[in-house]
Amino acid sequence: MKSNFIPASVIRKKRDGETLTDTEITQFIGGIVDGTIPEYQASAFLMATFFKGMTPGETASLTHAMLHSGEVYEFTKTGKPVVDKHSTGGIGDKVSLILAPLCASLDLAVPMMAGRGLGHTGGTIDKLEAIPGYRTKLSRAEFEKCIETIGCAIIGQSESIAPADRKLYALRDVTATVECVPLICGSILSKKLAEGTQSLLLDVKVGSGAFMQSKDKARTLAKALIQVAKKMHLNCRAFITNMDQPLGNAVGNTVEVIESIELLKTGKGPSDLKEVTIALCAQMLEMTGKVKTAAQGRKLALEKLASGAAYKKFLEMVEFQGGDIRAIEDPSRLPLSSLKCEVPATVSGYLTQFKSREIGLLLIELGGGRKRAEDSIDPSVGFMFHKKLGSRISKGESLATIYYPKHLNAEELQGKLRDLIKIQASRKAAPKLLGEIID
Amino acid sequence: MKSNFIPASVIRKKRDGETLTDTEITQFIGGIVDGTIPEYQASAFLMATFFKGMTPGETASLTHAMLHSGEVYEFTKTGKPVVDKHSTGGIGDKVSLILAPLCASLDLAVPMMAGRGLGHTGGTIDKLEAIPGYRTKLSRAEFEKCIETIGCAIIGQSESIAPADRKLYALRDVTATVECVPLICGSILSKKLAEGTQSLLLDVKVGSGAFMQSKDKARTLAKALIQVAKKMHLNCRAFITNMDQPLGNAVGNTVEVIESIELLKTGKGPSDLKEVTIALCAQMLEMTGKVKTAAQGRKLALEKLASGAAYKKFLEMVEFQGGDIRAIEDPSRLPLSSLKCEVPATVSGYLTQFKSREIGLLLIELGGGRKRAEDSIDPSVGFMFHKKLGSRISKGESLATIYYPKHLNAEELQGKLRDLIKIQASRKAAPKLLGEIID
Repeated sequence: MKSNFIPASVIRKKRDGETLTDTEITQFIGGIVDGTIPEYQASAFLMATFFKGMTPGETASLTHAMLHSGEVYEFTKTGKPVVDKHSTGGIGDKVSLILAPLCASLDLAVPMMAGRGLGHTGGTIDKLEAIPGYRTKLSRAEFEKCIETIGCAIIGQSESIAPADRKLYALRDVTATVECVPLICGSILSKKLAEGTQSLLLDVKVGSGAFMQSKDKARTLAKALIQVAKKMHLNCRAFITNMDQPLGNAVGNTVEVIESIELLKTGKGPSDLKEVTIALCAQMLEMTGKVKTAAQGRKLALEKLASGAAYKKFLEMVEFQGGDIRAIEDPSRLPLSSLKCEVPATVSGYLTQFKSREIGLLLIELGGGRKRAEDSIDPSVGFMFHKKLGSRISKGESLATIYYPKHLNAEELQGKLRDLIKIQASRKAAPKLLGEIID
Repeated sequence: MKSNFIPASVIRKKRDGETLTDTEITQFIGGIVDGTIPEYQASAFLMATFFKGMTPGETASLTHAMLHSGEVYEFTKTGKPVVDKHSTGGIGDKVSLILAPLCASLDLAVPMMAGRGLGHTGGTIDKLEAIPGYRTKLSRAEFEKCIETIGCAIIGQSESIAPADRKLYALRDVTATVECVPLICGSILSKKLAEGTQSLLLDVKVGSGAFMQSKDKARTLAKALIQVAKKMHLNCRAFITNMDQPLGNAVGNTVEVIESIELLKTGKGPSDLKEVTIALCAQMLEMTGKVKTAAQGRKLALEKLASGAAYKKFLEMVEFQGGDIRAIEDPSRLPLSSLKCEVPATVSGYLTQFKSREIGLLLIELGGGRKRAEDSIDPSVGFMFHKKLGSRISKGESLATIYYPKHLNAEELQGKLRDLIKIQASRKAAPKLLGEIID
C-alpha cells in the first residue's frame, strides 16, 4: 500500500456518495487482503457501500481487485468453450449436479466452483458431500486434469481463489451488508472469473424460496451483474426463474443427490427440475456459439440426457473426485435416515402456497443445513414433497415424506411442515417457471 | 451479554432504519466495551447510525450505556451548584482556562474534564500542559479534593470515565463516522454526566474556524444535545457563538495561556474573548439559579474578574494540579519560541476574511497541534494576531507575529499565514459574536 493512501478518506468518499477511483478501490481491497487495513475499516466501507452503492465502473474495479487477490485459472487450452452457471440460490436447487455433466457431454468445459448452503438455501458442495468419498477440494492440477479429461468438475472455492472474497464475505455475513448489489456482483463475478470461465449463465431465482422476493429486485441484480461482467469481458446472460416452491421434489442433501441421479440415469424426474435444467443448458449452448438457437440447444440437451451420455459424465466426474460410484449406481448406499414419516393433509383442496424459505429453515433444524459456518451437516435428513403448487389435495393424502434424525419428534415435525404448506378451497394459477432472459 | 443477543441483527435493524430498544443499545455498547462484540461489528453499527440516525430516546439509551460503562463522579456534597461548559471547538478558544476559575470564584463547582486538540482545533488540555508541571491527570480523590477546596479543576478524560466513549471515538476517527449528531451527543453528554455536572452550557461554534460552517447545522446539533440532556435530567442550554476568526489574539498553546493569564490578572484583554467568557459565565449563573437574570450574572462575573478573585482561583487550581505558579505570575517563564517574525500586510484595505480552519492546520504544521494521536506538541509555537475582521489595514503594518520552530523557514511561514488573511478595498460588516441561546 502506498504511504499516502488513507483508508479513512476512501471510506469518507464512499460515505459521501462520491465515485472512487480504480486505484483507491485496488488499494483498499489490497489492504484488506494483506491485513494493512483493519477489519473495522473494511466493515465501515462495506456499510457505506451498502447505502451509497457503486457505479458499474467501480464495481468492475472491485471485481478486478478481488479476482486478482488470488490465483486465476485458465482453460482455453482445452479447445472447448468454457462455461459455467451461477444460481442465486433456492430450495431444492440441485440443477448444477445435472447441468455440469450434461454440458460436459455436449463438449463444453465446465470448471464449476460451487458454494455451501447459505441462509435458508442449500449448497451444491454440501449436496455432493453426501456421496461417500467425494472430494470437493481438488488441487489445481487435479481440477485442471478433471476439466481436460472429463469436461467438468464441481469443487468448493479453493483457498487460493479470490481470497478477498472470502475475507469480505465473512465480514458481510456478520455486519448486515450481504444484501448489496455491487458487493454481490464483486463476489460472484470475481470467483467465476478466477475459475477461468469465458461465459456465465446466471440463474436468478425469484419467489418465496429465493433471496429476492420481487422480480424487480431480481432484474436489478441481473442487469448489474451483466453490466459488470461485460466490462470484465465475460460473456454473460441471466435467466429469471421461479422459486415459489421447491425445485423438484427433494429438499435435503442425500435426497437431492438421489433425485439428480434418477434424472441423469433415466432422463425422467420432476418436470420443473428437468425443464429448468434443459432450458439453462440450451442457453449455455447458444451463448457459447455451440448452437444457433436455444431450441436447437434444447433438442441436443434432451438427447444427451436420454442417451445416458450426461449420466456417464457424472459417473466419471464423481469417480475422478474420489466419490464411491457404487453409491451412484445403487443410491440405496447413500446415507438416508431410516426414520421417516408422512405428512397427511388435514383438509381437501388445492395446494396454493409453499413457505419455501421456512422449509429451508426447517431443514436446518433437522440438521440438513448450518446454523453457524462451523456446523457439520447431516446429509441423511430431508423432505420429499409429493405435491406441487396447484395440485388437487384430498384429505389424508400425504403431502411429503420427512427423513428425520433420531433426536427429533416425528409428530412435531409433521405439524411444522404442514404449517408451511397452504391448502385452500379454490385453485390458484401456478407461477410460471421460466421467466425472462436478460442479456 | 445474553446468549440470544445477535449483534448482526442489531446492525441490520439500525441499517433498515428501525428504532432500537434500550436493551439492544445497552447490550451492544456493553459488548463493545467488554470485547465480546468485535470492532468490525461496532464500526458497521456506527456507519449504519451515520446514515439512519437515532431518535432522542435511542440517543439517551446510547448516552446512558456509555455513561455507565465507567465510573460516575458526584459533587452534590459540595453544596454548590455543579456546572460545566462544553465548546464544540474552534481556533484560539481558550475560554475554559478563564471561565472555570471565574465560575469557582462565584461559588459554582466546576469539575471540568476537557479534551485535546481535534482536527484543526486546539484543546484545553494541550494548552494547560504548556504550564510546567501542570498535571492533567488527577486521581479521583485528587480531583474531588480540588473541586471541594478550590471549586474547579481541569483535567483530561480519565481512563475510568466513559471507556465506551474512548473505544467508540477511536473507531469513529478512523471510519469516517465522526460527523454524526447522535454519536456526538452520546460522546459529549456521557462524559459530562460522568464527571458529575448538574448543569451544562454548550458553546456551539459556527464559522470558518468551527466544525460547523452553517448556523442550521449548529442549531440542529444544539437542539439534539439539549433534547437528549433533558431526557438524562441534565440542565442544559446552548449558546451559538461566532468562530469566523480566532477568538482573542493568541493561537497556540503557550501564547493562549499567556493571553488567558493576562485577562484573569488584569481584567483586560481582547474584547471578543472577554465578551464570550463573561456571557457564558452569566448564563451559567442564571441556569444554576445563582442569579435571576443574565444581566445580573454578567455584572457579578465582571466584578470577580476585575477584583482578581478569578485569578486567585486560577493560581490555586494550577498549584493544586502541580503547575509552576511562578510561570503564571511571570509568564516569561512559559515556554515560548525565541524565533519570531512579523507578517506585514502587502496591501492596504480592510480585513475581510480569516481562513480560520487553515490557520489551525498551519499551527499543526508548526508543531503546535497533532497530525496523529500519538504526536507530541510543541507549546512554544503559535500566532499572535494584531487585527480583527473589519480592521483598517495599512500596507506594511504587521497582521500577526509568528512564533516558529527552528526547522521551519520564516519567510515561507509569513507567506502561508498571509494567504490566510484576506484584505479587500471595502469594509465588510464583522460577524455578530454572540448568537442565539437555545434551551
